[in-house]
Amino acid sequence: MAETNRIARLVSRPTGHASRENFVFEDAAVPEPAEGEFRVRVQYVSLDPAMRGWMNENPVYTPPIPLGSPMRAYAAGTVEASRNPKFPEGQAVVGMFGVQRYAVSDGRGVVPVDTGLAPLQRWIGGLGMPGATAWLGTHRILEPKGGETLVVSGAAGAVGSVVGQIGKRLGCRVIGIAGGPEKCARLTGTYGFDAALDYKAGDLARALREAAPDGVDLYFENVGGPVGNAVMHRMRTFGRVAVCGLIAHYNDADPHGGGYDARATSSILLNRLKMQGFIVSDFGPAAFREAVQTLAQWHADGALTVTEDVREGGIDSYVETLNMLYAGENQGKLVLRV
Amino acid sequence: MAETNRIARLVSRPTGHASRENFVFEDAAVPEPAEGEFRVRVQYVSLDPAMRGWMNENPVYTPPIPLGSPMRAYAAGTVEASRNPKFPEGQAVVGMFGVQRYAVSDGRGVVPVDTGLAPLQRWIGGLGMPGATAWLGTHRILEPKGGETLVVSGAAGAVGSVVGQIGKRLGCRVIGIAGGPEKCARLTGTYGFDAALDYKAGDLARALREAAPDGVDLYFENVGGPVGNAVMHRMRTFGRVAVCGLIAHYNDADPHGGGYDARATSSILLNRLKMQGFIVSDFGPAAFREAVQTLAQWHADGALTVTEDVREGGIDSYVETLNMLYAGENQGKLVLRV
Repeated sequence: MAETNRIARLVSRPTGHASRENFVFEDAAVPEPAEGEFRVRVQYVSLDPAMRGWMNENPVYTPPIPLGSPMRAYAAGTVEASRNPKFPEGQAVVGMFGVQRYAVSDGRGVVPVDTGLAPLQRWIGGLGMPGATAWLGTHRILEPKGGETLVVSGAAGAVGSVVGQIGKRLGCRVIGIAGGPEKCARLTGTYGFDAALDYKAGDLARALREAAPDGVDLYFENVGGPVGNAVMHRMRTFGRVAVCGLIAHYNDADPHGGGYDARATSSILLNRLKMQGFIVSDFGPAAFREAVQTLAQWHADGALTVTEDVREGGIDSYVETLNMLYAGENQGKLVLRV
Repeated sequence: MAETNRIARLVSRPTGHASRENFVFEDAAVPEPAEGEFRVRVQYVSLDPAMRGWMNENPVYTPPIPLGSPMRAYAAGTVEASRNPKFPEGQAVVGMFGVQRYAVSDGRGVVPVDTGLAPLQRWIGGLGMPGATAWLGTHRILEPKGGETLVVSGAAGAVGSVVGQIGKRLGCRVIGIAGGPEKCARLTGTYGFDAALDYKAGDLARALREAAPDGVDLYFENVGGPVGNAVMHRMRTFGRVAVCGLIAHYNDADPHGGGYDARATSSILLNRLKMQGFIVSDFGPAAFREAVQTLAQWHADGALTVTEDVREGGIDSYVETLNMLYAGENQGKLVLRV
């Protein structure tokens, strides 16, 4: 075999942002599947906000990545050597294949996808885990009623852009918060949001007052930090908050720094908010499949717009590409082409 | 009539703690009931943490108190002149009678109580609004399962002491947090808590680690501030948090000061907590009555211990007595004898 594998191995745990020093990038032999296994040629690695947390010694809802192991990653690829009849050669698949060119799997947690219905990279984005996250957080936690005002932060991202489109279908007035005029133009132009607020443009509190003069019923939280506080200050009585992400805090070196400020915290009580944190796997595989099937159908009908920001740097650019996410530099779901 | 009324009128809105300068204390004629009304001789005024918020210009879940009006207060007394057949002379009642010796009412929101079953002051404490708050917050929001670890802050107070006793009856391991050795001794000695932690004694995080080595499933939040953060840091996966009070923040002059810190905020997501703010009236009058009836029955059976800290200063000591609450100086439900 002419090719070699290329692997990003985590070798130390970052404080603050991850850097190249926390990884080694090395060549290795292309792995051969044993009986019951198959080899995947990884074509797209998903860059997810949760990745920074996965690098920690105690990442809470997932086992730690042992130092020296390939960096954990959700990815999409094609089966190219198989000793497992359920995953024949040529089958497109998504799963936790890691930041590497080739992965061997026994099929656990691996999902076959139909590239006739949507391109491969979309199945790790709006039609994959981020899409299901948007669907389940909105339906199971926010439980929108028609006419309510829904705000989503990180609105131009993989999850947020789908949340907004679900909200619109359910009859909500949808306001997205994103960074910069380009993202904001995409929210209203491409995804059909009612309003887009640029948190980098200055006075977000004022922009929110103007966009939601009667307050906010539903908040899909992807961000935390000053953006989260601004929305929490505008919540209405009996509002609901789905806490899906707190990307502003993932690189905090000081865990005792500010989270929700006094007024945001008081809003939970004074407005009798229901808040719930969640990750998509909490709802189980059947709910996940139902969410993805529904979204794939909408997508096939032309009723759901999903975009990816595909970066070309390959395995060796993993760290720099990941950090673009925390800097908000991506336009749409960020993926790395291998 | 030889007596005069005595009224504490709110004349300016405090910044930070309330002070005597925000009130005038004045004599007035004893009011006479019109047709359909009755006069109550107020005997006990309840000091409630929410009172500081009621003094604000925009108290959120209740109309503001117009400047110059009697301070709003939940209170207990006896009907002594009546032109309303539903409230005959001699009937003991509780209601929002205000900080004054005499109040006239048309009966709206007034509840007759049975002083044969428990002394009058108890019906504004453990058998009144604070008791119903404890009952409904615990049952409707925390939904305890046997064997879970329940932490309550402000545990020696009117609400907290009842929360702990309900938790014990439901089979939870109950840990109370209070200030000072006297209160802590009361938690384990009088109310039957499994453990009592003194937040004034120093390292609360460590005390919590030792008292709840496997973490906290249920948190009844009365306090916020550093106590709230310490408990939030110990929450277990799928824990529930009932946000009933944030007394540490009620006198905040700076609304953008710290609320839940970054680690507490992240705990909502990482542990997939369900948090809900509430006030007792959210559950409606039928739920309130059911809660009070159940608690009164337990009390009559000797299965519920309720204590009051009765202060003797009268109407003119209202502000100083209220501020004892925020300083944590009371032992049990704080009431002012009129």
